[in-house]
Parts: sequence; C-alpha cells; structure tokens
Amino acid sequence: MRRIFEALGVPNLFAEVTADALVYANLRCIDSHGVSRGLDYVVGIKLGEINPRPVIRVVRETNSSVLLDGDRGLGPPVANELVERVIEKVGSTGVAIGAARNLRDVGALGYYVSKVTRAGYIGAAVANAKARVSVPGVASPIVGTNPIAVGIPSRKRTVLLDMALSVASYGKILSHAARGERIPEGWALNKYGKPTTSPEEAVEGYLLPIGGYKGLALAMIVDILAGPVIGGPVSLEITGRGPYTQGGLLVLAIDPALFRKLEEVEEAIENYARLVKSLPRDPNTEVIIPGERATKCVEERSQRGIPLDDETFSRLAKIAEELGISVTELTSPIPNV
Amino acid sequence: MRRIFEALGVPNLFAEVTADALVYANLRCIDSHGVSRGLDYVVGIKLGEINPRPVIRVVRETNSSVLLDGDRGLGPPVANELVERVIEKVGSTGVAIGAARNLRDVGALGYYVSKVTRAGYIGAAVANAKARVSVPGVASPIVGTNPIAVGIPSRKRTVLLDMALSVASYGKILSHAARGERIPEGWALNKYGKPTTSPEEAVEGYLLPIGGYKGLALAMIVDILAGPVIGGPVSLEITGRGPYTQGGLLVLAIDPALFRKLEEVEEAIENYARLVKSLPRDPNTEVIIPGERATKCVEERSQRGIPLDDETFSRLAKIAEELGISVTELTSPIPNV
Repeated sequence: MRRIFEALGVPNLFAEVTADALVYANLRCIDSHGVSRGLDYVVGIKLGEINPRPVIRVVRETNSSVLLDGDRGLGPPVANELVERVIEKVGSTGVAIGAARNLRDVGALGYYVSKVTRAGYIGAAVANAKARVSVPGVASPIVGTNPIAVGIPSRKRTVLLDMALSVASYGKILSHAARGERIPEGWALNKYGKPTTSPEEAVEGYLLPIGGYKGLALAMIVDILAGPVIGGPVSLEITGRGPYTQGGLLVLAIDPALFRKLEEVEEAIENYARLVKSLPRDPNTEVIIPGERATKCVEERSQRGIPLDDETFSRLAKIAEELGISVTELTSPIPNV
Repeated sequence: MRRIFEALGVPNLFAEVTADALVYANLRCIDSHGVSRGLDYVVGIKLGEINPRPVIRVVRETNSSVLLDGDRGLGPPVANELVERVIEKVGSTGVAIGAARNLRDVGALGYYVSKVTRAGYIGAAVANAKARVSVPGVASPIVGTNPIAVGIPSRKRTVLLDMALSVASYGKILSHAARGERIPEGWALNKYGKPTTSPEEAVEGYLLPIGGYKGLALAMIVDILAGPVIGGPVSLEITGRGPYTQGGLLVLAIDPALFRKLEEVEEAIENYARLVKSLPRDPNTEVIIPGERATKCVEERSQRGIPLDDETFSRLAKIAEELGISVTELTSPIPNV
C-alpha cells in the first residue's frame, strides 16, 4: 500500500502512515477499514476527490487545543498530524483536544486512539461519515454510522473500544447477500424506511442504529460535534462517491495522572478483568474486555499473515500492475507489530 | 423535597441543590430520577448509607482538573460542587475535567451537563451504577446501566443527550408488570441469563444493553473510567440497597471558542435541525434533536405541574408527615424554570 500511494504522488511519510493505518485495521480483523478501503482511497485520488499532497493548516491553537484544516487531504496523514499535536499538548496541560475538518476518510479511529494510549494517556475520538443510518418511518438516511473510540492506557493489556453506531455494517449485509441468506430483523430498513430482512433491500435502504432512538441520538450528537461545533459538514451534507468521504474528526487526550498513578489504574483494570471473567456463564460464552478480540487477531495475523479476499487481492494486483509495482512485493512478509 | 432534606439534617444549600436536581428530572418527564428517587435518598439517609452532611475534599487538583472525594455523601451536592469547579477551570484552560468518587447516586446526569452548557461550554458526563445489565449466556449482571450525557451550548435550543446504556429501564419493565403485559424481546434476560418476555422474570434477571455487545463494551468503558481510572468501585463492586448507590462520576467541559464562535455553532445547529426535520417521513414519525422531548416536557409541566403517581405521592406524604412538614407545602405551586 505504501508503494502504491507513493506511486500516486503521496509524499513518503504520508504514504507510510496511510499504509500503517490500513494494515492496523486488517491486523485487528477490521477488514472493512483495511487494504480494501485503501483501494477506495486510490479511486478517490484518481477521481480528484482526495488530495494526495495536502497542506495541513492550523486554523486555531491554544496550549490545550488545536483545530486543523486538512486541505481535502487523504485522511490518515491529517488525522495522524492531529493526534501527534494533541499528544504533545496533553503532556503539559493534562487534558487536550484537537479537531480536523476538510479531510477525507481516516480509516479505523482506533488507530489514532491507540497512539494516545501508547503515549500513556486516555484517548477518545469521534468522527461523522456520510448518512446511512435511519429509523423506521423515515424514508431517508439521517446520520452516518458516526463511530466513537475510547482507549485507556495500560502496559498490561489493550483496553480499546472502537465502534460504529449502527447495529450491523454494510459489509455484514453484503456478505449475507453473497451467501443468499436473509439478514436478522433489527439490522436495516428498505428505502421506504420499512424494516426488512432482505439484504438486497437493505443495501438500497438504511442501517438501523444501536438501541433505536438512543443510538440515533448518540449519532446526532457525534454529528453535531464533528460538524457544527468544528465547522465541518454534517452526515447529510457529506457527498462524494465511496467511503473516502468524511465530515470532521475530534480527538481528546487525558492524563490519568490527573486522578491516579498509572500503575494503580493498570492494577485496577486487571482486577476488573478478573472479576468480569469469573462470572457464572455458559461454557460457550465469554466476557471480554473491549480490545481483547482485536489483540487476539493481531497475534494470529502477525504470525500467519493477513488473508485478503479474492476481490480485494485482484483489485490490489490490478492497481499495483498499473503503477508498475511487482506482485512479489505484494506477497512479501508482513512487518513485526 | 428541600424541606424534607433539611429536616433530615442536610445543610440548607445541599438540600436545595438536591431538590433542584430531582425536580429537574421530573420537569423533563424523567420521573425515575425525580421525587421518587429523592424518597429513596431519604431511606438511604435513615439507613446511614448516605451521609447527609458530607465534607467534600479535594484529592488532586491542577489548572484543568480536579478529583473530589464525596465523603459517602448525598450525590447531588457532591456532583454540583464538581461541576462548579470544572466550569470555573474551563474558563481559563479551554478544556477541563473533574471526577468524584465516594459519593452516592447523583440523579439525572443531564442536570450537571446542563449547568455546563448554560455556562456556554460543551459538557459531557459519565457515571457507573450498580450492575444490572448482562448479555445472553451470563447468569449474573456484568455492568450498570452506566449513563452518559453530552450537551452542546446554544441559546437557541437545548441540545442534550442523557441516556442509560440499557435498551429499557427497570421502571418500564415494572409498568408492564403492573399492566399485566409481556415485555418485548430484546429488553431483558431472566436470572439464568436467558432471554425473557416475562416482566416478573426480567425483574429477577438483568437488563440488556443497547446494541448487544456494543452497548456492553461501551458500559464497560464507562465502568473503567468511573472506577479504575479515578479510584472508584466498578459496577460489580457497588453494594448497598436501592438506587442511592453510585460508583464514580466524571464531568468534562470544552470551550467551543477553541474551534468557532458560539454564534456560528448555534447557527449551524439550527441549520442541522432544519435539515433533519425536512427529511421525507411518515406523518406520525418525527425526527427530533436530542433534548427536544425534554424541552417540551418542561414547557408543559412548568404550567400544569408535575403529576406524581399515587405510590410516590403517598410515600412523600408519609415522610413529610413524619418530619412534621404540612401537606399544604406539598401542593404549593412549582417555581419558574
């Protein structure tokens, strides 16, 4: 991916962070935000919808905050610049917030929040995306899947939540369609705003939010934070083809030392994990701490490699070939994580 | 309520803020967190589980943060002290965070977040509560309904989300039981961790989180923030009878001027409201901005008064009588809001 972006005129460091963000997602089994999404970025760059060489500009700045304009740029380099600035600030102020507007899709929010937690701080991020979520009775999307991510620093385990506010993703619906299976009730609406269990109707329709009106309200709050509050578009105003669109992004960092020593926090988290894992349950049910599943994926995929589905691999190979990148490079061993 | 708390030895200002927090909830039709909960506080004070005269202590403090110890105190005065300190700090630092531990139930989080937004800042709060929520296959509660609240300042409308992370509340289940109706699937589990539509089984069992594992993960993150991070108990460690228990509370405040002029934010929110309200929909479906329903309740109940159910009124009357407070005072007109 790095070589592909470089070949498209993306500066070296920007190409590297973009590839890193995509591989981060694949390693955690978030394949929807991995290499396949990177190939969508390629389309976006070719169409002129994504600026491959953005000049990132500071719009406002204080000791504890920064607002960036992403110059319609490839999302990961802009978001990475944002998170690095927020991490620098939180070191002196204890709590810091940054926002970026006028940028394209940033991939998995967890990538940026992980950078905050690895630096030893509590991290949180929200972003809004093109409207795809609705509620029964409304014949239009209302909000995006508007993800939220929160991470707590610990050198003993990864504690990281990174989730969209829809019950299911489009990816899940598409794989039901591919297998010829109906989708469960509660996942989607058809284009008239009526509940459906047909994956084909769902693709033309809208996703349902978690918790019905509760999830819709939460997605609206994210929309207002990432839009009106920072001067970005709201979900309904985000246009452009493909998932390389984005509204705004906010990143918050908090020094846990404001409250306790990090060692105490880590120990209390381990006690918490022991407690919830000791609860009486069916043998085939497991209570996991947010981030645990992704950690297992990293272990497995770091050793065995990242499996790409046939469609993604052939898209990747085709783009690589067009850009004169040899296929040998595509099958080289993945780096250590 | 103020007179009742004063009669129980609660200092004047503490009694006032507690009554105010309870009436805030009733005025917004959040009756579960109103006068009826205040009567639970009365029980908690009588049992010695709630300290009516807490000595609130600053554990740690910086320019942008504060950690309070609530001395096992009545929640609203402790939470109010916290939010006032956070508001004072955010004025100079642009972003500020506060936490309180060792306090009892604080009532509706929206009460405190509203104080932040009325001061012109973005506000957010999370708290953990006694474990009552679980997922299928686990024969124990795992987390509390661990509410979250977020508010955006605007002089043109209230934008405020205040929600528990369970699909339904115990209150709703109890009212189904009272009417002899089954509860919908997806609301609750029985005590063995199996899905149930019987309200009686649900009361002995657990509530289901919004979005299944997504809501559980979000509630766990809140639990970790309000517990391990600040040195409070996690949901499973919170004991004590009744809803007058609490883990910890965090309040965040952000100055919107870090990003834009408040006037610009307000105007963009109005555009947002117009946009989502103009979407094609069934005539009996309405798309509302978070906070809108509560605002309507305030208008209605400020004029007509707050209806109390018979049980709450008779409990109130009995307690008032015991404390020598005349019933005339209970039916006096409510103050302006």
